[in-house]
Amino acid sequence: MENVVIRERLAKLRAAMQAHQMDFYLIPTADYHHSEYVDGFFKAREYFSGFTGSAGTLVVSMTEAGLWTDGRYFIQAEKEIRGTGVTLFRMLEEGVPTIQEYLKDKMESGQTLGFDGKVVSTALGEELEEILGKKQVSVCYDYDLAQEVWTDRPKLPNHPLLVLEDSLCGKTLAQKVAQVREKMAEKECAYHVLSKLDDLMWLFNIRGKDVTCNPVALSYAFLSMDDIHLFIQQDEITEEANAYFAKNQVTLHGYDEIIPFLKEYSYAGKMLLDKKALSFALYKIASDRTECVNEANPTELLKAIKNDTELENSRRVYIEDSAVLTKFIFKMKQLEDKTSLNEYEAAMMVDDMRREVPGFLDLSFDTICGFKENAAMMHYEATAEDHKQLEPEGMLLVDSGGQYLGGTTDVTRTFAMGTVTEKMKKHFTLVAVGMLRLAAAKFLQGCSGRNLDILARQPLWDMGIDYKCGTGHGIGYILNVHEGPQNIRWRYTAASTDSVLYPGMIVSDEPGVYLEGEYGIRTENILEVVLDEKNGDGQFLSFKMLTYVPIDLDLIDKKWMQPRDIELLNAYHRDVYEKLAPYMNEEELVWLKEATREI
Amino acid sequence: MENVVIRERLAKLRAAMQAHQMDFYLIPTADYHHSEYVDGFFKAREYFSGFTGSAGTLVVSMTEAGLWTDGRYFIQAEKEIRGTGVTLFRMLEEGVPTIQEYLKDKMESGQTLGFDGKVVSTALGEELEEILGKKQVSVCYDYDLAQEVWTDRPKLPNHPLLVLEDSLCGKTLAQKVAQVREKMAEKECAYHVLSKLDDLMWLFNIRGKDVTCNPVALSYAFLSMDDIHLFIQQDEITEEANAYFAKNQVTLHGYDEIIPFLKEYSYAGKMLLDKKALSFALYKIASDRTECVNEANPTELLKAIKNDTELENSRRVYIEDSAVLTKFIFKMKQLEDKTSLNEYEAAMMVDDMRREVPGFLDLSFDTICGFKENAAMMHYEATAEDHKQLEPEGMLLVDSGGQYLGGTTDVTRTFAMGTVTEKMKKHFTLVAVGMLRLAAAKFLQGCSGRNLDILARQPLWDMGIDYKCGTGHGIGYILNVHEGPQNIRWRYTAASTDSVLYPGMIVSDEPGVYLEGEYGIRTENILEVVLDEKNGDGQFLSFKMLTYVPIDLDLIDKKWMQPRDIELLNAYHRDVYEKLAPYMNEEELVWLKEATREI
Repeated sequence: MENVVIRERLAKLRAAMQAHQMDFYLIPTADYHHSEYVDGFFKAREYFSGFTGSAGTLVVSMTEAGLWTDGRYFIQAEKEIRGTGVTLFRMLEEGVPTIQEYLKDKMESGQTLGFDGKVVSTALGEELEEILGKKQVSVCYDYDLAQEVWTDRPKLPNHPLLVLEDSLCGKTLAQKVAQVREKMAEKECAYHVLSKLDDLMWLFNIRGKDVTCNPVALSYAFLSMDDIHLFIQQDEITEEANAYFAKNQVTLHGYDEIIPFLKEYSYAGKMLLDKKALSFALYKIASDRTECVNEANPTELLKAIKNDTELENSRRVYIEDSAVLTKFIFKMKQLEDKTSLNEYEAAMMVDDMRREVPGFLDLSFDTICGFKENAAMMHYEATAEDHKQLEPEGMLLVDSGGQYLGGTTDVTRTFAMGTVTEKMKKHFTLVAVGMLRLAAAKFLQGCSGRNLDILARQPLWDMGIDYKCGTGHGIGYILNVHEGPQNIRWRYTAASTDSVLYPGMIVSDEPGVYLEGEYGIRTENILEVVLDEKNGDGQFLSFKMLTYVPIDLDLIDKKWMQPRDIELLNAYHRDVYEKLAPYMNEEELVWLKEATREI
Repeated sequence: MENVVIRERLAKLRAAMQAHQMDFYLIPTADYHHSEYVDGFFKAREYFSGFTGSAGTLVVSMTEAGLWTDGRYFIQAEKEIRGTGVTLFRMLEEGVPTIQEYLKDKMESGQTLGFDGKVVSTALGEELEEILGKKQVSVCYDYDLAQEVWTDRPKLPNHPLLVLEDSLCGKTLAQKVAQVREKMAEKECAYHVLSKLDDLMWLFNIRGKDVTCNPVALSYAFLSMDDIHLFIQQDEITEEANAYFAKNQVTLHGYDEIIPFLKEYSYAGKMLLDKKALSFALYKIASDRTECVNEANPTELLKAIKNDTELENSRRVYIEDSAVLTKFIFKMKQLEDKTSLNEYEAAMMVDDMRREVPGFLDLSFDTICGFKENAAMMHYEATAEDHKQLEPEGMLLVDSGGQYLGGTTDVTRTFAMGTVTEKMKKHFTLVAVGMLRLAAAKFLQGCSGRNLDILARQPLWDMGIDYKCGTGHGIGYILNVHEGPQNIRWRYTAASTDSVLYPGMIVSDEPGVYLEGEYGIRTENILEVVLDEKNGDGQFLSFKMLTYVPIDLDLIDKKWMQPRDIELLNAYHRDVYEKLAPYMNEEELVWLKEATREI
């Protein structure tokens, strides 16, 4: 059966392409800032293809339309695009061309590829320009055709700004701008353009609500040595924010004024920018007009290395958040009839408990609550409609966190709901050992996560088991739960940098075992990088735990631990009891004592 | 007092510079192939400055002469250049200009810097060209002025070639050339020029004796898809070699004909070359004449991944070599009067014992035999004149190895000569634990040494101790004892690549503790990378020991070991006993049983 709705939308898109003399049009899945989640306004790819998945790119010509997506979505995409005339291109499958190969093959000399340069990454834009340029195909990145065709397009997300107290931030906007200008001067740059939303929020000491779970506002900034320009939707600026910006001599512009501003500015010096963190449109406009120095945004490292205020608040917030999760585990353990709850209800329960914490702003991400085999899917999310009923056996994995005035948390615990097998205990113990060993590492300044990853992975690798993800990611302060540049991974990917660890950075430590159709285990603590001893051999660093939640002893089998591992677990549990005791009621405390007993 | 000899040499050099219209002349310390050691012919820097150290660069102008060397040599250089008019530039000291800075500062528009482009690295040559080019200073790399001035210059090293049996190499010259041509075709290159001596020896299945301890012959090669050209000193070609090359259709040229050949060749395609492994002169000549693709030499990885023949021979040779060192340790342990020997005599003893092994060709490097605090110097070498007498206390470190028809060995053992302290035992045990843990690693294909280094280092880092060198280096097959691209290091340096480990690679595993003025400990085993299990999580690799020499139990303190470490040590010692027993006489066997006892 034909999908008339999508076919009509594509017909209108093709008409717009003809009007703009475009032969092919490309629609990726991204907002203007390559945020982790995209809001309705940015779902043009879904609008024109019917495919609702979180990743995919649509390419439309006068006669064809192709959707590229990855293995997670083949079945769903096939179903959703049925009857639309769109062809599915299964990425990474043998014989399936990449978008680049497809365009190179299909497009002819003299033709034009169009896309909205504001949602295409600089890397992709430059690659297409180069490949197609060789065939005398031109690229037009100036128009967002969706805007012309999509009549009932949702509005841009738009929420009032939150201005953070300076006392919560440790440094004022003026101090932070001075730090950035120092870096600009070092690179002999007179200007800096910023599009990375968490960097922007950090720099201005503001927060927004324009991206799901990321407390950020859609915005851009342009700094010279004298001026600070912020581009943001007028409606987001509360009276308080207005006064704050005025006081800090921030010149305000509309969100969509960034492009005319960059085009018309009278440049008299070089511009510092991070190509990776700018859309193709912005990069082209800037680099066409003045010499650009392509380096990581100074804000990236400044933000990643938390200051004392941020660290003190984070430490406190992590204990409060740990107490919530521990109380939740207690509830689940005590629950007489486990079948009275499903995964979704359990997730709602822990979310509601978090909402009670003073300073709660939002969840850090949608809670993952996976029972039994559902936990083997790393990013499983139970819904009100689609979920598993709990039972008095097997394991429940809960990965959750909150945004608070004082920090962003992230924690995963897997725990027994009843009977568990020897194999589950073995795997759970190896995961706990890996987590504890990495957290206990002492290492020379200069190490990156790449040097350390094996400490978490080795107990599993020894058994021929791997988890197909990094061991850890950086975490923001009242900001994105995934934050760079630091990470703990054993190999590079295009998306992951290899950044040295510095004191004040916060990283996750989350090894796991994922057995498809059986179960999933993940134990995730968050670590702070701290100074350790300094001697003739150098400056040593180590980690300090931020997370204090019991590791389920019902799943620990000492057979898989060395004495040192047992010491680490016992020491951790002593700390957990000590930190959490003040938050527990009498009944909970009795249980906590037992849950953190020495083994 | 004036050093008239050096002053006269410098005067002649300046006259030659004037004749060639050069204003400054630079002399580094290198042969034409950047070998690890340089022969007398290549010691022009020493000839014109009097400084005999192994590293340094001399820059001479009409009025000044400067010698750049590093901290190891400040005292020696100061002494040796006294009265020569040469000024010492202490590298890396504050306020001391680099050579580049010095030349940029001193040279004026229109002047010329000269150097022999055959001994200057492409990196340095290009850097100088770029820096000086901006000042309109030109670079002339065509002349070796030493050749014109240095009348009693030693001859080029020159020794008859050894042609290895194909059965010793596993692959014939023709097969290896075919492999290289496959890589050339992949890179769409018609030509390949090769200057790296160990790569050349591997490719042609020949060995030489032109560089100390490196069984290589001075040579170059040029491959097209049809022809094989070898440039080598005529006298090195024995009758056997001549027949061998004829049979394999290798066209022979004089060693010094490489430059005219490259200049006059009629190119009809791209050339594959590795800039890092070519002199500036060769690179310039090649890249001026045809398009070059700058990639690692295909031979580098082909050579590093040993074939089955090479591995089988290496395994056998390593056991024979291990037996020698073990017998030596036995002798030293039994020695009634320890003071009857000095470090140098002990080194000679182990060298002589190695010479008895069938197939012995040479030492892999000059034996390091350091007693007590001398062992804290990583590259200490006792001499007939300068050495320490042994005593019945403290530790002796012996790092040694041999070149055999069947492999290149390298092994370090540190052992007690008598009374030792608790601190020594602690450090020795931690080093042994680090060595054993790395050797026991199981890891996914794709790991480099960078991922694994911490396994060897962690026991020491936990105590705030580091060793200021890599954990391991690659090793050749009847070739250089230091061979790339693989290594085990925790961070990059300009000189060390980050290469993935492949089955068939051979690497050393040599953590240590070096306490200046006290003692040095190093325990070095050589490991072969082998395939381990393959499952849904990927292809795992692990290491197999090549070295089987007891680890001195007199220095082991179980207090610093986890049960798993003790298991590893006991398992290793069981293997040592089993592998070495056939080589031991009755008395040695009794001792070996005790030396490898279970703890």
